[in-house]
Amino acid sequence: MHRLNFASDYTEGAHPKIMEALAATNMMKTSGYGTDEISERAREKIRLACSCPDAEVYFLSGGTQANMTVIDALLAPYEGVVAAETGHISSHEAGAIEFTGHKVLTLPHELGKISAESVKRLMEAFLADGNREHTVFPGAVYISQPTEFGTLYSLKELEELSQVCREYSLRLYCDGARLAYALGSCENTVTLPDLARLCDVFYIGGTKCGTLFGEAVVIPRKGLIPHFFTIIKQHGALLAKGRIAGVQFDTLFTEGLYESIGAPAVKAAKRIKEALIAKGCELYLDCPTNQIFVLLDDEKYNELSEKVVMSFWDKPDESHTAVRIAASWATTEADVNELINVF
Amino acid sequence: MHRLNFASDYTEGAHPKIMEALAATNMMKTSGYGTDEISERAREKIRLACSCPDAEVYFLSGGTQANMTVIDALLAPYEGVVAAETGHISSHEAGAIEFTGHKVLTLPHELGKISAESVKRLMEAFLADGNREHTVFPGAVYISQPTEFGTLYSLKELEELSQVCREYSLRLYCDGARLAYALGSCENTVTLPDLARLCDVFYIGGTKCGTLFGEAVVIPRKGLIPHFFTIIKQHGALLAKGRIAGVQFDTLFTEGLYESIGAPAVKAAKRIKEALIAKGCELYLDCPTNQIFVLLDDEKYNELSEKVVMSFWDKPDESHTAVRIAASWATTEADVNELINVF
Amino acid sequence: MHRLNFASDYTEGAHPKIMEALAATNMMKTSGYGTDEISERAREKIRLACSCPDAEVYFLSGGTQANMTVIDALLAPYEGVVAAETGHISSHEAGAIEFTGHKVLTLPHELGKISAESVKRLMEAFLADGNREHTVFPGAVYISQPTEFGTLYSLKELEELSQVCREYSLRLYCDGARLAYALGSCENTVTLPDLARLCDVFYIGGTKCGTLFGEAVVIPRKGLIPHFFTIIKQHGALLAKGRIAGVQFDTLFTEGLYESIGAPAVKAAKRIKEALIAKGCELYLDCPTNQIFVLLDDEKYNELSEKVVMSFWDKPDESHTAVRIAASWATTEADVNELINVF
Amino acid sequence: MHRLNFASDYTEGAHPKIMEALAATNMMKTSGYGTDEISERAREKIRLACSCPDAEVYFLSGGTQANMTVIDALLAPYEGVVAAETGHISSHEAGAIEFTGHKVLTLPHELGKISAESVKRLMEAFLADGNREHTVFPGAVYISQPTEFGTLYSLKELEELSQVCREYSLRLYCDGARLAYALGSCENTVTLPDLARLCDVFYIGGTKCGTLFGEAVVIPRKGLIPHFFTIIKQHGALLAKGRIAGVQFDTLFTEGLYESIGAPAVKAAKRIKEALIAKGCELYLDCPTNQIFVLLDDEKYNELSEKVVMSFWDKPDESHTAVRIAASWATTEADVNELINVF
Repeated sequence: MHRLNFASDYTEGAHPKIMEALAATNMMKTSGYGTDEISERAREKIRLACSCPDAEVYFLSGGTQANMTVIDALLAPYEGVVAAETGHISSHEAGAIEFTGHKVLTLPHELGKISAESVKRLMEAFLADGNREHTVFPGAVYISQPTEFGTLYSLKELEELSQVCREYSLRLYCDGARLAYALGSCENTVTLPDLARLCDVFYIGGTKCGTLFGEAVVIPRKGLIPHFFTIIKQHGALLAKGRIAGVQFDTLFTEGLYESIGAPAVKAAKRIKEALIAKGCELYLDCPTNQIFVLLDDEKYNELSEKVVMSFWDKPDESHTAVRIAASWATTEADVNELINVF
Repeated sequence: MHRLNFASDYTEGAHPKIMEALAATNMMKTSGYGTDEISERAREKIRLACSCPDAEVYFLSGGTQANMTVIDALLAPYEGVVAAETGHISSHEAGAIEFTGHKVLTLPHELGKISAESVKRLMEAFLADGNREHTVFPGAVYISQPTEFGTLYSLKELEELSQVCREYSLRLYCDGARLAYALGSCENTVTLPDLARLCDVFYIGGTKCGTLFGEAVVIPRKGLIPHFFTIIKQHGALLAKGRIAGVQFDTLFTEGLYESIGAPAVKAAKRIKEALIAKGCELYLDCPTNQIFVLLDDEKYNELSEKVVMSFWDKPDESHTAVRIAASWATTEADVNELINVF
Repeated sequence: MHRLNFASDYTEGAHPKIMEALAATNMMKTSGYGTDEISERAREKIRLACSCPDAEVYFLSGGTQANMTVIDALLAPYEGVVAAETGHISSHEAGAIEFTGHKVLTLPHELGKISAESVKRLMEAFLADGNREHTVFPGAVYISQPTEFGTLYSLKELEELSQVCREYSLRLYCDGARLAYALGSCENTVTLPDLARLCDVFYIGGTKCGTLFGEAVVIPRKGLIPHFFTIIKQHGALLAKGRIAGVQFDTLFTEGLYESIGAPAVKAAKRIKEALIAKGCELYLDCPTNQIFVLLDDEKYNELSEKVVMSFWDKPDESHTAVRIAASWATTEADVNELINVF
Repeated sequence: MHRLNFASDYTEGAHPKIMEALAATNMMKTSGYGTDEISERAREKIRLACSCPDAEVYFLSGGTQANMTVIDALLAPYEGVVAAETGHISSHEAGAIEFTGHKVLTLPHELGKISAESVKRLMEAFLADGNREHTVFPGAVYISQPTEFGTLYSLKELEELSQVCREYSLRLYCDGARLAYALGSCENTVTLPDLARLCDVFYIGGTKCGTLFGEAVVIPRKGLIPHFFTIIKQHGALLAKGRIAGVQFDTLFTEGLYESIGAPAVKAAKRIKEALIAKGCELYLDCPTNQIFVLLDDEKYNELSEKVVMSFWDKPDESHTAVRIAASWATTEADVNELINVF
């Protein structure tokens, strides 16, 4: 039986324009490891979109890989990375950060977000600790935009975080796995140039935002990480045919595709959310991007599961289940209608 | 000016059939991380091609990544991996093996190959060493087929290596980055079922053999590496859209494409080699696969470099340069003719 | 000015009997790395004291070193270690566990202790998690006896923990940095044979219990960690003159010295505690071993600090400071009287 | 039966003056982790002996530990350490360097020594390699003085090495496990101030030169390794009772003990060597410090082994064995006479 599939934002292949570009360039001969002209063109377009002409840009194949490679490169060996206890690196990357030798220092979160104030408190406690030389030094702060809960840092919040980080010599790193869905949200106030101005490193997510694979790591301040190319290789993250990622990001940053690819998904999520509320559904939590978190009683959950693939999110009590419904760049109006109908 | 490009076997995108398959499946919705039906179909075809119905198969994105993830998973923490001093892991992976905490124990090579005899000698010396508990324990043997020099292990050589490894409880791992060009060589005597029978793990190279990216790691004996899925994730090597690799290997293992994709490249290399010898060129070393290693005097080298992109290989003396010319599945007869002409 | 010193239980050198033994054996010639007869004699005495004739015993130089070496050896690469959030490995070892590639998975504590129930809940949640293959696998449980707060696991609590660990295939490891002060407490119900029966590995602390340095790692089930000698060397923890540790533990396990060395310190702590309470002091927390945790208003704290070296413990509010006072095997009655007088 | 023991230079405990100092200070109360006044006094004396008033000095417990902690701290994550293929870190530390994530890049040796010229060639080859970003960057050079073969770098050789290192931005690190026996050799031309002037880090060996344990790591240029204290802790190498090492080095650097402790051992070795040659023994290799390497036919070897404990060194052919005889600060004239007699 056909089931609707709203399990995640990476259920399809690539945006049709990307497939076209891959086909069009397929038999071109280029040099490897991202040294080709297409990758360079993609980098140049990303620099432009970020208003950051000196930025270094590297294409890696996935999010965990980008996180572990960047964070390991940003930290001194005796430093750890500060993150929300719900951050992807804290909970769902199989210990990849610890694999590189670093501790994740967790902070409490509010719907996936950490505050400048909590970072400040952490640093003040660290600096006041007479035994701090026996502990892990906080070296960087990890955030995600949108967060794992689909929520957004406002420009003000990000500026405050950035300021606290600079005050305490912490590097600020933003995981943008779903960044297109932040940019596509009408509640969003943080632009790519803002990220480039306020973060030390961030990545522009491809895998969940329309590519076959690939994330673009942006280092606004050139030279911040010496020999990052070699570090990428050492972490097993260097793509031999780097241009395959380059072609995809070249397409995403042509005619503003990346900045516009998320909006329909966010609108679809909004439509679904409003319809579900109208039908009496209770939200488990509310966010302004492409994901909807709904609380269902278990009977309803089991019944729906036969018709729609959703992601299990939580089991808050004996008789209820929280599920995640994800719209994406590939979600059609027909899908949305059908989903609303089955609820 | 247009230059011919014989720099490597990964200058193009993917084999046209792969591009077709990617396009045909692009808007399918599937689950992530390789749990989809297309990936499973690809795995099943690989098991069949390897005559190994119980094999575990995992798709990773690149060769260094596969090497570091597999070798780290195969070794106990106090073990190292034995490899030719010219092995890719010894020399050209930026220390990725050491990054995972393991030493590469090098052996001398003959055109990239190590012998069962040299492994045996190493193990006998290790076992005879009264201080061996102060040294790194040899735990696995790394070979490549074809080697970094394009040479091939014969079936007899591989059987001997495998036997020595089993005698000394060493795991045998084969890097098949260019495996299709071994299978496409008329001098080859080692089949996929032979690899499955004689190795503990091997990978079937995609990136250099016709895919956009991707290598298929084969573990013939199911359960050899517990929780390898999680280990892959921990090494940053898990593909969210795993099916993109699955589609490509599904295509490569349909109607024997993988087994036949290398032969034209090997023939092209043979034609080039013979023509160059006929023109008075000296081979730097000879191999039966898709690469040609030529010794040029520097004047000739500089002159040719304006017309053909080749790989620098070595500088054996003041006035000569050794270069590598690589044919691939994408090399056309026109390319070959043109290359021969410019020499 | 002379200040009393109750800062820690490692302010002096070694117990006089140990100094005698070191002097008496000083010019003996023995083999290195713990292969000498004195070390073997010490191991034999420890096996006897633990009623565990097959135990492996290794002498390492310090607690963090023992923790990182043992835990790394006990865990599979994809596993983490479960510990109280206040556990020494969680908070005060500069990320040594993460340095070996493993995550510390923290549990809430009650005065430094974790419960079998909380371990069970963690494991049930882990096993119920459909995404558990994307997370760190719990592989071992770390506890300390006494804990960092000087509290003790009862035999019942330890048996429950041990049972839960075995049920879920978790290895149980006990850090006994201050073990002599547990054995010396009249509230203690856990013997060395109990530890050997219920733990997979534990260490008998020397540094804080009367040696110049050294901890005795006990592996009750022989062969549990293959090649642990080499793993010790690899972690930089192998002592060339291993017998220096051997001599010290030989002394500690002669005529029950280890089992009796802690009692006077515990009694001293009890006297101090009662006298301080009688003088109106408030305990910050109460424990039955060799440490006293007192809450002082800051004026009193500053005044006392001129006369006694204590350890800062916490700053619970603006005007109070919690301090730790540690008695040890070396604490004299005169010290105790003087301390009580200055309060 | 009583056997003479010339197996190594760490068969005894500590020099009598050290034992006296440990006894004299045993019941002093001091702060931990090397922050005490005795450790500081020892550091001050070492600075003086090295004519290096700003040097940082840290006491670690053993040689492998010092090597792995220092080298890991000196290298960027993408760098490896250059060493003789016979260097202790290359061959006899169980992969401790690789455990910290770094490759050992080996150079050929001459009796344990590497030359400035060979380092220069390595660096020129590295810099000329168009693929160097795919390889491990040489970041530091490891030497030992004396070497594993008991040989010595001359001042000229060390100056040349130091100059090449500075030219190519390599840090120079010297393992001084047996440094006292270099200082005690009449062929020696390298002083402690020379080491401080020419190396970036070196360690002054204690374990093999008269202490119970302990090595003094000297960083002549203050601040070279930020937060080295925490790095030591993270590597499990921080001594809680740091003063026990401090007392020992305080003694070694009082009245020139360290500079004089090796000379008798070197003289003893010379006497043994000359007597053995006079008796017709063949040297396996010749060195000017405290070790003698003799080639014996196997019959003689077996016969002697019943009377003297020596170290097996090599088995150059079917019927001969090379052995190492080590004199030390503790070797008596009676021992020497007896040894000569049994040969």
